[in-house]
Amino acid sequence: MLRVGLLGAGRIGIVHAKAISSHPDSRLVAVSDAVAESAEKLALQYQCRHCSTDEIIADPDIDAILIASPTNTHSDLMEAATAAGKAVLCEKPVDLSLQRARACQKVVANRSTPIMIGFNRRFDPSLAGLKAAADRGEIGKAELLSIHSFDPSPPPIEYVRVSGGLFRDMMIHDFDMANFIMGDVPESIIAVGSSIVDPEIGAAGDVDTAVATLSYSDGRIAVIKNSRRAVYGYDQRVELLGSEGLLQVNNVIENSMVKSTSAGVVSARPTYFFLERYMPAYEAEWTAFVAAVTSGSPVPVSLDDGVDALAMAEAATRSAQSGLSVKLADVN
Amino acid sequence: MLRVGLLGAGRIGIVHAKAISSHPDSRLVAVSDAVAESAEKLALQYQCRHCSTDEIIADPDIDAILIASPTNTHSDLMEAATAAGKAVLCEKPVDLSLQRARACQKVVANRSTPIMIGFNRRFDPSLAGLKAAADRGEIGKAELLSIHSFDPSPPPIEYVRVSGGLFRDMMIHDFDMANFIMGDVPESIIAVGSSIVDPEIGAAGDVDTAVATLSYSDGRIAVIKNSRRAVYGYDQRVELLGSEGLLQVNNVIENSMVKSTSAGVVSARPTYFFLERYMPAYEAEWTAFVAAVTSGSPVPVSLDDGVDALAMAEAATRSAQSGLSVKLADVN
Amino acid sequence: MLRVGLLGAGRIGIVHAKAISSHPDSRLVAVSDAVAESAEKLALQYQCRHCSTDEIIADPDIDAILIASPTNTHSDLMEAATAAGKAVLCEKPVDLSLQRARACQKVVANRSTPIMIGFNRRFDPSLAGLKAAADRGEIGKAELLSIHSFDPSPPPIEYVRVSGGLFRDMMIHDFDMANFIMGDVPESIIAVGSSIVDPEIGAAGDVDTAVATLSYSDGRIAVIKNSRRAVYGYDQRVELLGSEGLLQVNNVIENSMVKSTSAGVVSARPTYFFLERYMPAYEAEWTAFVAAVTSGSPVPVSLDDGVDALAMAEAATRSAQSGLSVKLADVN
Amino acid sequence: MLRVGLLGAGRIGIVHAKAISSHPDSRLVAVSDAVAESAEKLALQYQCRHCSTDEIIADPDIDAILIASPTNTHSDLMEAATAAGKAVLCEKPVDLSLQRARACQKVVANRSTPIMIGFNRRFDPSLAGLKAAADRGEIGKAELLSIHSFDPSPPPIEYVRVSGGLFRDMMIHDFDMANFIMGDVPESIIAVGSSIVDPEIGAAGDVDTAVATLSYSDGRIAVIKNSRRAVYGYDQRVELLGSEGLLQVNNVIENSMVKSTSAGVVSARPTYFFLERYMPAYEAEWTAFVAAVTSGSPVPVSLDDGVDALAMAEAATRSAQSGLSVKLADVN
Repeated sequence: MLRVGLLGAGRIGIVHAKAISSHPDSRLVAVSDAVAESAEKLALQYQCRHCSTDEIIADPDIDAILIASPTNTHSDLMEAATAAGKAVLCEKPVDLSLQRARACQKVVANRSTPIMIGFNRRFDPSLAGLKAAADRGEIGKAELLSIHSFDPSPPPIEYVRVSGGLFRDMMIHDFDMANFIMGDVPESIIAVGSSIVDPEIGAAGDVDTAVATLSYSDGRIAVIKNSRRAVYGYDQRVELLGSEGLLQVNNVIENSMVKSTSAGVVSARPTYFFLERYMPAYEAEWTAFVAAVTSGSPVPVSLDDGVDALAMAEAATRSAQSGLSVKLADVN
Repeated sequence: MLRVGLLGAGRIGIVHAKAISSHPDSRLVAVSDAVAESAEKLALQYQCRHCSTDEIIADPDIDAILIASPTNTHSDLMEAATAAGKAVLCEKPVDLSLQRARACQKVVANRSTPIMIGFNRRFDPSLAGLKAAADRGEIGKAELLSIHSFDPSPPPIEYVRVSGGLFRDMMIHDFDMANFIMGDVPESIIAVGSSIVDPEIGAAGDVDTAVATLSYSDGRIAVIKNSRRAVYGYDQRVELLGSEGLLQVNNVIENSMVKSTSAGVVSARPTYFFLERYMPAYEAEWTAFVAAVTSGSPVPVSLDDGVDALAMAEAATRSAQSGLSVKLADVN
Repeated sequence: MLRVGLLGAGRIGIVHAKAISSHPDSRLVAVSDAVAESAEKLALQYQCRHCSTDEIIADPDIDAILIASPTNTHSDLMEAATAAGKAVLCEKPVDLSLQRARACQKVVANRSTPIMIGFNRRFDPSLAGLKAAADRGEIGKAELLSIHSFDPSPPPIEYVRVSGGLFRDMMIHDFDMANFIMGDVPESIIAVGSSIVDPEIGAAGDVDTAVATLSYSDGRIAVIKNSRRAVYGYDQRVELLGSEGLLQVNNVIENSMVKSTSAGVVSARPTYFFLERYMPAYEAEWTAFVAAVTSGSPVPVSLDDGVDALAMAEAATRSAQSGLSVKLADVN
Repeated sequence: MLRVGLLGAGRIGIVHAKAISSHPDSRLVAVSDAVAESAEKLALQYQCRHCSTDEIIADPDIDAILIASPTNTHSDLMEAATAAGKAVLCEKPVDLSLQRARACQKVVANRSTPIMIGFNRRFDPSLAGLKAAADRGEIGKAELLSIHSFDPSPPPIEYVRVSGGLFRDMMIHDFDMANFIMGDVPESIIAVGSSIVDPEIGAAGDVDTAVATLSYSDGRIAVIKNSRRAVYGYDQRVELLGSEGLLQVNNVIENSMVKSTSAGVVSARPTYFFLERYMPAYEAEWTAFVAAVTSGSPVPVSLDDGVDALAMAEAATRSAQSGLSVKLADVN
C-alpha cells in the first residue's frame, strides 16, 4: 500500500485525490495547500490529514508525493521530496524556466527515488493505442505526424500574463506527445504565432494561435496546431502518416445521439475540456506510477521528458519571434 | 445519508456496491448473498457488515434495500422489504411469472415506501437525451420507433433453460425502452423468433433471434430486433422517426482511434457488453433513486413499469408461438 | 451495337435515355410516349426517332426495348415485345395484379429473348458490395436482415389511390432486395401498417408507415421498415447480421462538409431521393443488361424475380389487414 | 452554343472532352495532340475534327480553347489563343517559371477575351460549400486554415525530375485553395520539406513530404501538409477554424458499406485519386466557364490567381531550402 501526500488541492489536485483513493494499492494520507480551506475540504472528504507541505515532505510514513502546486514551486519541491526519499509524481510543466529545470535535473540526477512527470495524455487509451499500433509497425515507417489541439476558450488574461506563453503553457503537451509518438526529439523547430483570438493576449506579449513544424534528423516531420479557442469544445486530434497507412485519434464526443432534420444531421460536440476528455488518462497515469514505484521499474515519463518538452517550447518561442528555424541543440 | 442494505453480491451487486459507496448521500452498510464468500468479500472492500438477508430486512438502521438477488426471489423480497418500511430498488425483471408479479403488485400497492425497478438504460445519457429531445418536440410527432439490441454472445445453455426465454430475459429491456420513449404501452404485439445462432437454444425451447412489432392505439409502430450473438460487440441502437426528423442513439465505441491502410479504414468496435456500455447509466440510476427517496418524490421507474414490460414479454412469447397478433389486454 | 427503343419518356425514361446513350455498346434509336411532347423532346436531345409504341415494337432494326411506361401496360408490352423477338428491360413493378403477372409469366415462358426487371438497387455499388461480401462468407452464415427504407415525402394522394398500396408500390423494392441478399424467398410474412403520416392516405385505404417481418424456411429472419416521409431526405439503409459479423450499407450524403459550432456538429443530409441516390445503379443496371444480351448469358434479374416480389407484396398486404402470418405458398 | 477546341487529348483532356460534350451550351469541334492517335481517338468518340494546334487557334469558327497540353506550352498557347480572340480555359499550373508566367500576364493584360485557370477544386461542391459558409459568416471570423493533401502514390521519378518540385507541382493546388478560402494572399511563407517516402525523389533534388505555414497580414495563419504517398487512397481534407466554429471538408469515400467483425469496424477508403474525387468539380468548372464566357461576366479564376499560386510555390521552395521565412513581396 503506497501512502501518498498530495501537495496542492486545486482543480487538478482534486482529480488526483480521487485517483489515489480509488486505487486498490494507494491511500491518500495527507494534503497541503496554500489555501487552507481547499486542503481542509479535501482532507475531510477522503478522511486524511491536512498539514503543511514541509510536514508532508518530512513525514517518514509517506512513501510518495504528488506535486500539484503552482508551476514555480515544482523544481524546489521535486528536489526536496526526492532528498527526503519520496517517489514523486509532478504535474507538468516541470518549470517555466529551462535553466531552473536543468539545474533541478542535475540536483536529482543520482537520487534513489523516481520522479515521474504528469504528461497524462500519454495514458489516454486512444493515444496510447496509436503509439502501440505505430510501434507494432501497423502503418509501416512513420513519416508525418500532425497534432491538432484547440482549447474551448482562452484562460483569463491574468493567467496568460504569468503562463510563460502559449508554447510553454499549452503546446508543451503537444511537444511531449510528439516526443512520445516519434520516440525522439526533433532536430529543429520552426514556429509561427499570432494573436487573433483576443488582442489582449497579443498586448500581453503572447500568441493565441500557433503552428510549429518539427524536423527530425531522419527526415520525419511533425506539425502542431494550437488555438486558444474552439467554441464547439475541446478539439484534440492526432494523426500519424506512415509508409503503409494512417493512424488517427479523433475527438471523444459527449454522447452518441444524432438528430436528422431538414436542417441537417446533428451529432454531439467534443467533450468539453481536459478534465472530461482525459479523466481515464489521469487514472491510468496514477496506475502506471503506482506500478512503477511498487515494482521498482522505471517510471514511464521521466524528468528528462519534461525538460525536453520545455526546451522545445523555448525553441518554438524563439522561432516565432525571429522567423528563423531554431535548432534544439542551440537552446539552453 | 441513506443507509443501504444490498441483497446479492454477484456481478451486478458489485456494480451497485460501487455506485452506493461513491454517492455522497448514500452509504453501504450491509450485504448478503447465498454464497457467503461473495458477500464477505464485498463487505471487506467497502468496510460494511456481512449478514443474512433477513437481518438486513429487519435492521431498523437500514433505510433502503437494493435487491440484486436471483429473479425468483424478487417478488418475495419486494414484499418483505416494503413491509419492513424500506425503500427498494429492485433489479429487473420483476419476476418470470406475470401472475406472481401481479400478485406482488397488489400486495405492495398501498405500502408507504417506494419500489423502483432497475431499468438502467432509461438513465443512459444518450437514450435519456433521445427521450428528452422527443418530448421537446425536436422531431415533431413520433411515428416509428426501432430498437436494435444484440448481445455479444449467448449465455450458457444452463442459463437459457431457466431464463424464461429471450422475450422475458433479453427483450424485456427493449420493451421497457419502448414504453419509456413512447410514453405508452402498445395495444398489440406480433413477434417472430428463430433458433439460428445455436441449435441447443432451440432444443431448450427458446429462440436466439427475434423481431417484435408493437402497434399503438394511436397508429404509432415500434419494432424491436434481438440477437443473442454479435461477434463484434454489444450492439445497442435506438432510433425514432417523427414527423419532422429522426433521432438516433448509436453505439458507444471502445476508443476513438482509426486506422487507414490499403485494406480499408478500421475503427473501434462497440464497447463489449452491458457493464461497459451502461456503467454511467447505473450511476445515474442510483442518483435518481437517492434523489427520489430523500425528497419524497415518485421514483422514475415504478413496479407497474416492470409489470408492463413483463406482460409484453408474455404477449410476444405467445405471438411467436402462434403466428397471431396478440392484444396486450388479453394477456394475464 | 445494341439498338434500343424506349417506351416512356417520363422522369425515369429520361434517366434510361442517358444511360443508353452514354454506353459505348448501345444506341437510342426511337422513343415513344403517350404525351407526344415528352417523346419529341427526348428524341431531339438524343438525335433519335419519335414514333409510336407499336412502330417501335414492329421495327426489325431495333434489338432491345426498355419499358418505362405506366405499370398497367407492363405485362402487355413484355408479351408483345418478346413476341417480336426483342430483348426487354422492364421497369418495376411488373404489374399491380399478381394474377396478370403470373399469366404474363406463362405467356413469355418459352420466348427466346430475355426479360430483365429493373430492380436497379441490386446494382448499387454499396448494396451489390454487401451481397458480394455476404456471398464470400465475410460475416459467416446470414441470420437477420434489416432493410430500412424511408421516402423523403409522400406522393400525391392521386398517385396513392392508384398505386396498389404501400406494399406493392414502395416495399416491393425492399422485398426484391431481401430476395437478392437472402438468395431465397421467405416462407411466410407478418406485416403491420398504419396511416400516421397523412390521414388522407388512410382514407384512401392505404398505409404510410409499415413493418414486415419475413421468416425463411431455414430459420433466417428479415425485417423491412417503410415510411412515406423522412423530412431529412431519402433514408436507405440495409444491414445483415451473420454468425461472424455485420454488414451495413449506410446512407449516401449530399456532401462531405461538417460544421462544428457551439450548437453541435452538423453534417450533410442523405441525398434527396432515388434519382440522386441510385443514379450510378441505373447506369450499372444498363451495363449489366447490355452485357447479358450481347453475350447471350442470363439476365441478372428475371421476370420470376419480379413476380416473387409482387407475391410478397400481396402476402404483406393480407397480413397487415388480418393480423395473421401469411404463407407465401398460400398467395395466388 | 460555344464551339470549343481542345488542345491535348491525354488523361485530363479526355475528362474535359466529356464535360464539353455533355454541357447543353457547348460543343467539342476540334482536338489536337502531339500524339496523333490520342487526338484521333477522341475525335472519333465525340464526332469532331482532329487537326493541329495551329489550325484550332486559327479557326474563326472556334469560340473557346481549352488548353490541356504540357505545362511548358501553357504561356505560349494562352498568348496565341487570346491573340486570336478565343476565350481560354487553361489547366494549372500556368507555368513552372514564375518569370515566364509574369511575362505572359503582361502580354495578355489588355486582351478582350478571358483566361480562366483550371483550379478545379474551387468547384468541388464540398469545398465550394465551405467557402460559401465561411463567407456567410457561419463560423464568425476566420483564424486558422488547415489543408491536408496526400496523393495515393508518388509519380514516376521521370515525372518528378521535370515537375518543378513538390511545391510547384502538387502544393500549388493547395496554395490556390488557401487563396480561394482566405480571399487573400499571405504575407510570408515558412516551409519544411523532406524526402522520406522515396530516396530517389531526394536524389532528384525534390521533397516528397512537406509542410508550409502561411502568415497573413491580418494575423490569420494557414498550414498545408503534403505527402506524395497515402497507401489508403487520395486524402484530401480542409478545415477552417473561426471565432464561432469550425468548417471541415472530409474525404469522399468509395462506397457506404461498413463491415463489423471481431477484428473491428471497417469502412471504405477515400476515392482513389483526383479523377474520382474531383469529377463533379471538373463538370462544375466547365459550367462556370461557359456561364462566364456566354454572359460576359468575369471568369471565377483568373490568370492572376494562377500566378499568385506560382509565386507562393516559389516562396515555399526558397523557404524549405533556407530555413527562413520568405516574404511573398520578395519573390520575383
